[in-house]
Amino acid sequence: MHTISVSHTDLVAASAVDVRAAIRSGSYAGHTAGLAAGKLQCNLAILPERFALDFLRFCQRNPKPCPIVGVSDTGNPALPTLGNDIDIRTDVAKYRVFRDGALSDEVTDISDEWADDLVTVALGCSFTFENALLRAGIPVRHIESGLNVPMYRTNIDLVPAGRFYGQMVVTMRPIPEHQVAQAREISRRYPQAHGAPIAIGDPAQIGIDDLSKPDWGDAVEIRAGEVPVYWACGVTPQNVLLDAGLPLCITHSPGHMLIADVAEDAETTILKQ
Amino acid sequence: MHTISVSHTDLVAASAVDVRAAIRSGSYAGHTAGLAAGKLQCNLAILPERFALDFLRFCQRNPKPCPIVGVSDTGNPALPTLGNDIDIRTDVAKYRVFRDGALSDEVTDISDEWADDLVTVALGCSFTFENALLRAGIPVRHIESGLNVPMYRTNIDLVPAGRFYGQMVVTMRPIPEHQVAQAREISRRYPQAHGAPIAIGDPAQIGIDDLSKPDWGDAVEIRAGEVPVYWACGVTPQNVLLDAGLPLCITHSPGHMLIADVAEDAETTILKQ
Repeated sequence: MHTISVSHTDLVAASAVDVRAAIRSGSYAGHTAGLAAGKLQCNLAILPERFALDFLRFCQRNPKPCPIVGVSDTGNPALPTLGNDIDIRTDVAKYRVFRDGALSDEVTDISDEWADDLVTVALGCSFTFENALLRAGIPVRHIESGLNVPMYRTNIDLVPAGRFYGQMVVTMRPIPEHQVAQAREISRRYPQAHGAPIAIGDPAQIGIDDLSKPDWGDAVEIRAGEVPVYWACGVTPQNVLLDAGLPLCITHSPGHMLIADVAEDAETTILKQ
Repeated sequence: MHTISVSHTDLVAASAVDVRAAIRSGSYAGHTAGLAAGKLQCNLAILPERFALDFLRFCQRNPKPCPIVGVSDTGNPALPTLGNDIDIRTDVAKYRVFRDGALSDEVTDISDEWADDLVTVALGCSFTFENALLRAGIPVRHIESGLNVPMYRTNIDLVPAGRFYGQMVVTMRPIPEHQVAQAREISRRYPQAHGAPIAIGDPAQIGIDDLSKPDWGDAVEIRAGEVPVYWACGVTPQNVLLDAGLPLCITHSPGHMLIADVAEDAETTILKQ
């Protein structure tokens, strides 16, 4: 229907509004890493209202993997506290549609799936603290290497709410030993983006067998003098939603985030009205 | 039924668990300022489940006056993420019961009012950042003077959700001009406790006519070289709930907070399970 006519490179200097417009028009359907620098990017969970209260309770009880940054009115595709013109049916480059706990479709527009009982929950994402680490001169290996961040299942139980429960998923970044304390201090400043690390060092302490075999994403090199550092990951709520077997649930596709107009270092994620 | 047998002074060195036990047994029914030093204290809103989703949306959209620190399961008086043994029906020293938007009762126990459809929402409180200001050597006038903090209605519109809307209430603390930047920096570290100031200086900019006539609490002296600094206030959600005219709504009485086992400077308000 639409023609993909714009590349990632074309959009690197574009504003959040312009990136969303390119996505909405169908001329861009790629990943959003590195786009709209300085703006908050969000994980997405869209679900029927009758599950929304429990899902919000679940996120509140597990704020490190599930930091809530926006919640829509029921049936309303706008998210005015995140951006003035957001239409969640069209403004994400790629969506995953799950039915009864199984992946049903991967699409670039969910106008056909939209319904009056749907609630959108936007959650913070690790891009925010990765940008802050890079600004402080702390290397981020998977970005240097042009890879996806390695993600692992852990044995860390989440605090349950209703039908939502499970174990935490983490990302791992190898950090030079002398910069670990600084990396912890910097990321702690971003509670809307997973905050401080969940664990540092031995992967066995959180139930990870083999760092060279991530459950999602790509394995990255850990060099001499570097320590593996683990942060809570936004894949956690996606897994939990999948396991909950909701009749309908829609998420973004990995790496294809919602870009907000809110600055990623703002005190709150609420756009000035 | 119970005998008030314990004074505020008796409890100053007691743990959070022991203060809650004294309150639960009916032997203490006073205010909680200065008790269980270092522990998070919480504003309280208890409301029927059918209004809870909209109220959580309202709080998420107005995080400075309404920082969510805990949400109960429906009908369950426990708040395990805030404290292992909390029973919200008995563990707050004084409650206000509102029916159809009007104050109905002030009681020390809500066991008779409790119902299977009630949800407890705990919100952060200014005690947390006041303690941090005091530790940094920044004076807090109303505490020095043994008064209640002055609170004012403003013209700052809240972001609405469902039947919840209105204007923000703020507290005011006069801060020596050379310490204002530091006070802002310190309070910003506590997003679970109203965060950085909403405004600094001229009260007219936020619609306050006369600082000597607070809408709640006590007027305090502003000395030469001091600047009035305004923070979002936990009375905001109480006002909004009152205006919403819910058939039933229960809050703490001013100054009589829920004391949690969570450290007030913890990264999240979730007690380690």
